[in-house]
Amino acid sequence: MAFRKFLPMFDRVLVERLAAETVTKGGIMLPEKSQGKVLQATVVAVGPGSVNQKGNLQPMSVKVGEKVLLPEYGGTKVILDNKDYFLFRDADILGKYVD
Amino acid sequence: MAFRKFLPMFDRVLVERLAAETVTKGGIMLPEKSQGKVLQATVVAVGPGSVNQKGNLQPMSVKVGEKVLLPEYGGTKVILDNKDYFLFRDADILGKYVD
Amino acid sequence: MAFRKFLPMFDRVLVERLAAETVTKGGIMLPEKSQGKVLQATVVAVGPGSVNQKGNLQPMSVKVGEKVLLPEYGGTKVILDNKDYFLFRDADILGKYVD
Amino acid sequence: MAFRKFLPMFDRVLVERLAAETVTKGGIMLPEKSQGKVLQATVVAVGPGSVNQKGNLQPMSVKVGEKVLLPEYGGTKVILDNKDYFLFRDADILGKYVD
Amino acid sequence: MAFRKFLPMFDRVLVERLAAETVTKGGIMLPEKSQGKVLQATVVAVGPGSVNQKGNLQPMSVKVGEKVLLPEYGGTKVILDNKDYFLFRDADILGKYVD
Amino acid sequence: MAFRKFLPMFDRVLVERLAAETVTKGGIMLPEKSQGKVLQATVVAVGPGSVNQKGNLQPMSVKVGEKVLLPEYGGTKVILDNKDYFLFRDADILGKYVD
Amino acid sequence: MAFRKFLPMFDRVLVERLAAETVTKGGIMLPEKSQGKVLQATVVAVGPGSVNQKGNLQPMSVKVGEKVLLPEYGGTKVILDNKDYFLFRDADILGKYVD
Repeated sequence: MAFRKFLPMFDRVLVERLAAETVTKGGIMLPEKSQGKVLQATVVAVGPGSVNQKGNLQPMSVKVGEKVLLPEYGGTKVILDNKDYFLFRDADILGKYVD
Repeated sequence: MAFRKFLPMFDRVLVERLAAETVTKGGIMLPEKSQGKVLQATVVAVGPGSVNQKGNLQPMSVKVGEKVLLPEYGGTKVILDNKDYFLFRDADILGKYVD
Repeated sequence: MAFRKFLPMFDRVLVERLAAETVTKGGIMLPEKSQGKVLQATVVAVGPGSVNQKGNLQPMSVKVGEKVLLPEYGGTKVILDNKDYFLFRDADILGKYVD
Repeated sequence: MAFRKFLPMFDRVLVERLAAETVTKGGIMLPEKSQGKVLQATVVAVGPGSVNQKGNLQPMSVKVGEKVLLPEYGGTKVILDNKDYFLFRDADILGKYVD
Repeated sequence: MAFRKFLPMFDRVLVERLAAETVTKGGIMLPEKSQGKVLQATVVAVGPGSVNQKGNLQPMSVKVGEKVLLPEYGGTKVILDNKDYFLFRDADILGKYVD
Repeated sequence: MAFRKFLPMFDRVLVERLAAETVTKGGIMLPEKSQGKVLQATVVAVGPGSVNQKGNLQPMSVKVGEKVLLPEYGGTKVILDNKDYFLFRDADILGKYVD
Repeated sequence: MAFRKFLPMFDRVLVERLAAETVTKGGIMLPEKSQGKVLQATVVAVGPGSVNQKGNLQPMSVKVGEKVLLPEYGGTKVILDNKDYFLFRDADILGKYVD
């Protein structure tokens, strides 16, 4: 795991957007694009989750390796080893693709 | 279910707007339109629900297959297998049609 | 009940504004108008109520058939069987007329 | 009680502003005016109170018949039997006159 | 106490600003002025306090007769028996002078 | 203590900004300035603390006599015995200097 | 530890941005820059943590000596012994680098 070195904090999720054209089991998947941004991504690292007002840890909803659909806006660009990654909050991820 | 593959997260609901003219038991139903947008839709997939401040899961209010009335504004367009779907929050859905 | 078919969600209330001139026991009642909008209405359908932070269901304050006073602003127009209805939140209804 | 018929909802209070000049035990009381609006009023009807996040009913702080001081702004005009009344939230009433 | 008649509601405090120049034990005290407004005042009447989300009454922090320092802004002017008073929230009062 | 007379309320802290140049054990300390304002200060008086939603008193984090670092903005100027002091909220004080 | 003297308060973290070019075990690491600002930093001092609504102390997520990734915006500059440091809230730190 190239990014064992970077641990997102709280409920942040580090994702890598899919390449423009990805070959999957089901054939070629042209990721959904919006204003040139690929909205499908793979989860690369997840934070420990955040604590709610009562002090309880809210577990994360996505796991490393899952394919997710990102919102069009938001996210923070993070460059690690010269590659572009993005940090989103767990709650802002729209959904995930389950086989 | 074409969209078993896409799971909305938290309290999000994936819906498909009704076609312009739908034949129902009660005869032809011209879905309500507002600025050209059909406001009736079918629930295609639902998230697990969201957790409130106390850590309790709020169950969803709509189920897959139900006919619902969408608000005029809001919602996020999601393209899956080249078809348009929309994501709404459970709390933003105005009501449902029960036979 | 023509609208058994439409169930408002959460704490929403479906109302039908009174006709411009309604004959009641007490004689002709000219409903209060504000900018041409009749502010008196009859409750046609009510949602199940909303859940507060603690997970408790807040019961609704109005029942089907009651006469209520609507605020001047707000509300969502809903066309059902080609008739105009309006959705308000329970908390936004100003008061009700009790005989 | 002319307005037994109108019940404010939740924590709303129905008040009638004092006439421009009111004779009281203590002699003539020229109600305080601000931009032509009389700020003293009599409570005509009160709602049941509102429920807080914990589901507990917050009792109302004013009772029918009490003399209160209204804030300069806010309030909703309500015409009942062709007379002007005003709806305020319990929490917005500034104070009351106790003999 | 001229104002036993006026009871502020909830956590409101009725104050009277000190006269421009007040002789105190410690000699003449020129009250602090800001834009011509005297910021020192005497507490004339206090409300019962406000109730927090849990339904517990928050006791007031100032008592009738105490000398307090007012913030430069905020407060509601109230005319009682032709004299100017001001209503502030308990939480907005900056501090008090203790001998 | 010249200011035993003034008690800040709730979680407010009364501070006196350090003179432009202060000689300390460690030699001359040129206080940090920002736009001509000295940001180091001494705590002169503290309020009792504020009560949270549950009614619990949040103890103060600074004590009289401590040296603290003020934020660049905010604070309320208070003139006591013709000297300038400033009121800050406990939570807005950035940090303290411990020997 | 040059900065044992400065203790950040509540959930604040004092950090020192990495020098433009830092030699690490893994070779030369060119810290990520954004608008000329180095976004990698070392934690120099941490506050005690903040208390949530229930009065429970939220422990800090970073420790002195850890390498962290700062957000592009926010933070308060603090000059200590003529060197530039920055204060961030624990919750605003994006992530940390673990070997």
